[in-house]
Amino acid sequence: MADTSRTEPGLGWNEMPRAKAAKSNLTGSDFRLWSIAYRVLDMEGHTDLTQGHLSIRDPNGRGFWMKRTGIAFFEIKGRKDFVLVDLDGNRLEGKGVHGEWPIHAEIFRSRPDVNAVGHTHPFYASTFSASREPLRAVAHEASNLNGAVTRYVGTSNLIDTPKLGREVAEALGPAPAVLMKNHGITFCGPSVEECVLAGIFLERACHAQLVIGASGFAWDYTGEPEMREKYKTVMTPAFIRNSWEFYVRKLARREAGIAV
Amino acid sequence: MADTSRTEPGLGWNEMPRAKAAKSNLTGSDFRLWSIAYRVLDMEGHTDLTQGHLSIRDPNGRGFWMKRTGIAFFEIKGRKDFVLVDLDGNRLEGKGVHGEWPIHAEIFRSRPDVNAVGHTHPFYASTFSASREPLRAVAHEASNLNGAVTRYVGTSNLIDTPKLGREVAEALGPAPAVLMKNHGITFCGPSVEECVLAGIFLERACHAQLVIGASGFAWDYTGEPEMREKYKTVMTPAFIRNSWEFYVRKLARREAGIAV
Amino acid sequence: MADTSRTEPGLGWNEMPRAKAAKSNLTGSDFRLWSIAYRVLDMEGHTDLTQGHLSIRDPNGRGFWMKRTGIAFFEIKGRKDFVLVDLDGNRLEGKGVHGEWPIHAEIFRSRPDVNAVGHTHPFYASTFSASREPLRAVAHEASNLNGAVTRYVGTSNLIDTPKLGREVAEALGPAPAVLMKNHGITFCGPSVEECVLAGIFLERACHAQLVIGASGFAWDYTGEPEMREKYKTVMTPAFIRNSWEFYVRKLARREAGIAV
Amino acid sequence: MADTSRTEPGLGWNEMPRAKAAKSNLTGSDFRLWSIAYRVLDMEGHTDLTQGHLSIRDPNGRGFWMKRTGIAFFEIKGRKDFVLVDLDGNRLEGKGVHGEWPIHAEIFRSRPDVNAVGHTHPFYASTFSASREPLRAVAHEASNLNGAVTRYVGTSNLIDTPKLGREVAEALGPAPAVLMKNHGITFCGPSVEECVLAGIFLERACHAQLVIGASGFAWDYTGEPEMREKYKTVMTPAFIRNSWEFYVRKLARREAGIAV
Repeated sequence: MADTSRTEPGLGWNEMPRAKAAKSNLTGSDFRLWSIAYRVLDMEGHTDLTQGHLSIRDPNGRGFWMKRTGIAFFEIKGRKDFVLVDLDGNRLEGKGVHGEWPIHAEIFRSRPDVNAVGHTHPFYASTFSASREPLRAVAHEASNLNGAVTRYVGTSNLIDTPKLGREVAEALGPAPAVLMKNHGITFCGPSVEECVLAGIFLERACHAQLVIGASGFAWDYTGEPEMREKYKTVMTPAFIRNSWEFYVRKLARREAGIAV
Repeated sequence: MADTSRTEPGLGWNEMPRAKAAKSNLTGSDFRLWSIAYRVLDMEGHTDLTQGHLSIRDPNGRGFWMKRTGIAFFEIKGRKDFVLVDLDGNRLEGKGVHGEWPIHAEIFRSRPDVNAVGHTHPFYASTFSASREPLRAVAHEASNLNGAVTRYVGTSNLIDTPKLGREVAEALGPAPAVLMKNHGITFCGPSVEECVLAGIFLERACHAQLVIGASGFAWDYTGEPEMREKYKTVMTPAFIRNSWEFYVRKLARREAGIAV
Repeated sequence: MADTSRTEPGLGWNEMPRAKAAKSNLTGSDFRLWSIAYRVLDMEGHTDLTQGHLSIRDPNGRGFWMKRTGIAFFEIKGRKDFVLVDLDGNRLEGKGVHGEWPIHAEIFRSRPDVNAVGHTHPFYASTFSASREPLRAVAHEASNLNGAVTRYVGTSNLIDTPKLGREVAEALGPAPAVLMKNHGITFCGPSVEECVLAGIFLERACHAQLVIGASGFAWDYTGEPEMREKYKTVMTPAFIRNSWEFYVRKLARREAGIAV
Repeated sequence: MADTSRTEPGLGWNEMPRAKAAKSNLTGSDFRLWSIAYRVLDMEGHTDLTQGHLSIRDPNGRGFWMKRTGIAFFEIKGRKDFVLVDLDGNRLEGKGVHGEWPIHAEIFRSRPDVNAVGHTHPFYASTFSASREPLRAVAHEASNLNGAVTRYVGTSNLIDTPKLGREVAEALGPAPAVLMKNHGITFCGPSVEECVLAGIFLERACHAQLVIGASGFAWDYTGEPEMREKYKTVMTPAFIRNSWEFYVRKLARREAGIAV
């Protein structure tokens, strides 16, 4: 019952056009955007108690911002809900640093292309993390991740030391997301928007694969090289912008009490 | 893992009584009806970001109307949300033509009996599209489609050229709907109402087949000739009208904040 | 793929204490109760378009009352929504008789202990109807039906003739409910309250059996004679009253916009 | 199809730090807290008609408090909704004692470390109770129970005698929860808060295991000794407090009509 390989190599999600990274416009005043990102993740099933966190690289190079401990994703509203932590785990602003800060620190250290990192326990992806099955492109969502999702099987315990953080970063490699065995997922992007989309796509892709696997029917998935083509066709800057703005408007409706 | 056949022959859904096609009363002022059709599809699980589209043949023969890019099904309210496109993809009115317009153009070209076409990514039908299983009449919904749902397995990528559009139209054949492998579904009807019902029935039928397949129990489905008889018994003009009006009233309740 | 047996014998659900039948207090002014019964069924997943119907034996012996055609379960509010039909299908009051009136007529004819009959298409029970598996007491719900649910496999088409109605009544036998292959369910009771509870228990029982079947795990069910003992212990008049009143209050909350 | 062993030994959930038990601050004025506990369980899927109950050991040693019969979890608001029962089933305050009071009495008698006991029928745990599969740590939730969930297979009927209550208490052993075959679950804790969390974690853990089991994919779980380490790392007093307070705030949002 032991997995022998700790990771599967990513297929190049970071080949996405440079323009997208440039679109990331992190500023000290962007707490509103980052708060919306948390609440969008909540809306899409990523809340698990007060656990999980989304971090954004500090535009001034001091480390990264993440929500403080003790509050839930749906409660994040602004600056007072964030702490600033440097890559060695020193708290620079705010109070209440999650013990799993090393996930974020080590990914920011090893991935200069990444400006936002999420770690959550959504139901289907956390359940799928228990399987040994590669994530397959059952429908669009996994293709949107370029088939590049890896696995971390080192421990199912909290990632609360730099050593464990480095293991997760290594398992992630150049990919947009890593499934963490019997634990949850970590996902990232060149911007907070793309990071959130990666988390949402992964949860939906895992749900689809669990359902088609369960069906007992023979099934197929989008393989190479079609997936690489599809990724390039679909994941344009316009698609990413439209998709993000879709979630922002959907959230506004939800928060206004409109059925979504 | 390759499918060798690209389509399965339809069983004659377009044998439906002519009276129904005549009931389609498309006029230039019908944007309100078409907007409701989009919002009904949203209510029934057909929203995927700002992707997917429903088109209606222009009553004046200039092509077809579909929602513009960048907005979601639940946001379609009236004329400003639509574009008019001709069968060669030329934009005649409005702004923001979806890249997959050829799905609609080629079906309108090859199916004079069709006045509305939908292309969406609902969760269960998109997941079932990955299987190689014929859609079976587990319950009423698939019977309502006359067992005539086909498969398109040419690509899981966007259908963004006339050549690909023709492939999908060919795979659809005379059927009311086609499952698009690892992608989603396309459905159509002699009226916008029947088109929307076909999409709703297909999503529910796929859900039922995935659940009964997963159960591990031996199971049966309505086969020929019983299904053909059942289709004729159930799919009367009165049933279609009652079903459409049901969704319109259900939508009104939902939009008024009443639990549905 | 043909089923050879059309029914499985019931285990004696009608052995329930006489006191319960006596509790049924049908009066001509009870349209409010009957409307609530429809809306409770809607709340618990029994709405399928404007299809399905619940009937109550006329206290004056003229036949039975059921909702009229063209409206949904959630829309039933009072006398104007009902029609009175005699056991030969003659309309005595109101307008719009469902074509499947023979289900009700033939059960009322053959079952003097029954004062209410429901026929619906809830998702899980309709899906489970496709299986050849006996309903098993995975949890309390199936025990509450005394393991007495039968199957009708004569046709999956509408039951719109007295002959078909008699077939369904025969398949039902002395049971509280019958699964109708590739179609839905019919359920009944000595009172409208017990009839509604039977429908709700059956949908939940089918859901549980589909889920445990799908799990791939070895599983057990409550068998005889334990189930018979359990049925007697649980299904007391107080339990039936408490359960019905629970749904009435839950419905009141839902209709007041309170999350349920 | 018979289970030969009635229990599986617990792994030491009651090894939790003494500080946590001390945190339990039961007072005669705590009906508001206990009512919230009922409504949190309702929010998290533990309502089944007016069945099920949560009990709290009387701080003055007279027995335990539990909801009265005939009302649902979402209706519990204060003192008038509770009854006080001694360990022999004598009613000391209030009216309407649930027939299954012996579950609570016998666990309070045999487990001095326990100050609250819940017995409910949540959908996934009740369904999983039918399996013979040990609960496995698919994700965090089962780890939070320290892999210590046992099984009771003596009867699926009501536990309405001291003898049956003792059987359940014996099957529970030193564990935080016991799966009751074809019936439901019983869970407990040193405080009402921990008891409620145990019930919530168990329902979610059963859901995850049913889904991964159904997937047909090879899967792994957190085994010993990693789970023991993980339990110690995660289940700190701060985590328990944060998790409980999360549910209290989530409930407040729900009761204010905010989407959760």
